[in-house]
Amino acid sequence: MIKVVVIGSGNVAQHLIQVLLKTENTDLVQVFARTPSHLSHLLHRNKITSDYQKITEADLYIISVSDNAIAEVSAQLPFENRLVLHTSGSSEFSILNDKNRKGIFYPLQTFTKSKKIDFSPIPICLEAENEADYQLIENLGNCISQKVMRINSEQRKSLHVAAVFVCNFVNHLYQIGNEICKENNVPFEVLHPLIQETAHKIMELSPKEAQTGPALRNDTKTIEKHLDFLENSEYKNLYQLLTQSIQHVKKL
Amino acid sequence: MIKVVVIGSGNVAQHLIQVLLKTENTDLVQVFARTPSHLSHLLHRNKITSDYQKITEADLYIISVSDNAIAEVSAQLPFENRLVLHTSGSSEFSILNDKNRKGIFYPLQTFTKSKKIDFSPIPICLEAENEADYQLIENLGNCISQKVMRINSEQRKSLHVAAVFVCNFVNHLYQIGNEICKENNVPFEVLHPLIQETAHKIMELSPKEAQTGPALRNDTKTIEKHLDFLENSEYKNLYQLLTQSIQHVKKL
Repeated sequence: MIKVVVIGSGNVAQHLIQVLLKTENTDLVQVFARTPSHLSHLLHRNKITSDYQKITEADLYIISVSDNAIAEVSAQLPFENRLVLHTSGSSEFSILNDKNRKGIFYPLQTFTKSKKIDFSPIPICLEAENEADYQLIENLGNCISQKVMRINSEQRKSLHVAAVFVCNFVNHLYQIGNEICKENNVPFEVLHPLIQETAHKIMELSPKEAQTGPALRNDTKTIEKHLDFLENSEYKNLYQLLTQSIQHVKKL
Repeated sequence: MIKVVVIGSGNVAQHLIQVLLKTENTDLVQVFARTPSHLSHLLHRNKITSDYQKITEADLYIISVSDNAIAEVSAQLPFENRLVLHTSGSSEFSILNDKNRKGIFYPLQTFTKSKKIDFSPIPICLEAENEADYQLIENLGNCISQKVMRINSEQRKSLHVAAVFVCNFVNHLYQIGNEICKENNVPFEVLHPLIQETAHKIMELSPKEAQTGPALRNDTKTIEKHLDFLENSEYKNLYQLLTQSIQHVKKL
């Protein structure tokens, strides 16, 4: 049984707490949260502390707070030489305070508070200072996911940038599609099958093989019509830049 | 039994031919193709003509050729006052020659030759000059899809622009994610679950509710790190423009 303390009460922390509570072979012994009431819907008050001095002993400590707060929180921990992890894709390994052994437990997924998540298909990217710690983190990872992988900090950084493109920016393009529909009294749901198929396609084809549309065909008439249609200058710029970029990739 | 002639042998035409061949209540009586050999894997040579004069009688004719060719092809048809449709999202209704009755049969999906498509969930957007023709087109649509809808030309145009954003441009962001992974020796497949979840999310949440990431949080440290990381200036520009655009939407 791996004894875990989670430190944090935000979006990712809440999803982690939920999966650890229902996972066999892990024991969520405590959660540290500055505002325990944020977690009252998830676990009993006596499992939560907001006092650093009262953090209990565990096999590992997972800091899941905003990137800016990781350094300070890890410095406040009142113990030494224990295994302390953070869950951030973009924060350095070295941001964790030196007094404890360091590790990374980065679940590569988009978490929204209001939407439940199945962890089993989520890649969990792991890193540790020594092999014994790595084994322990890997055991924890294997308890909640089928896709645990060891990656170094440079790879993690690159994955985080890539994730911003394929998730945050993609979702923003959905948002633009949604706005265009709204302005023209077409339900956004009409685009759902297209959105799903576009995502499914790249499970079978590379994105380069899957590319279609006026930019790829260099269909200048349609591209001009679309640019005329778009009134929002930011969307017009995006349309032009993305069109150019598709055409550059085509030539590679 | 609705008798259909398909005119064209490209990507969309081939998918249409395949679905019409296996659909009850429709009879694909003939296909017109300038190069019949393009279709030899789909249907018998005697079902294909490349001579306009030999096009047979049918209830409707579906022109599924590149946007630039629709006008010319519809002008070449050697008959009058029959129902002739095109399948383009971006071409005008009026591009079809006046000698025949006009209609639109626009399946809103991304078609790749090498990937089979289930038509039943695909929205088919329909338009016609008169109600009797509309009924016939709707009957045809209902034979192959569960999501037939009447939309006017302005709405169709807006849907096509929106589709470019949520499909072609989204796929290009997948392509960028793929390149970043490749350069850093991380398998692109690690991003698959994130891509699928990002697409699934907007079936339950609006894109605005589903938005996450450094741009939304205005996490300037991470944004700077990512911009430093990106060496390709086009991707850097895209990163900046998309980040700005997310922040503008947030303020709305």
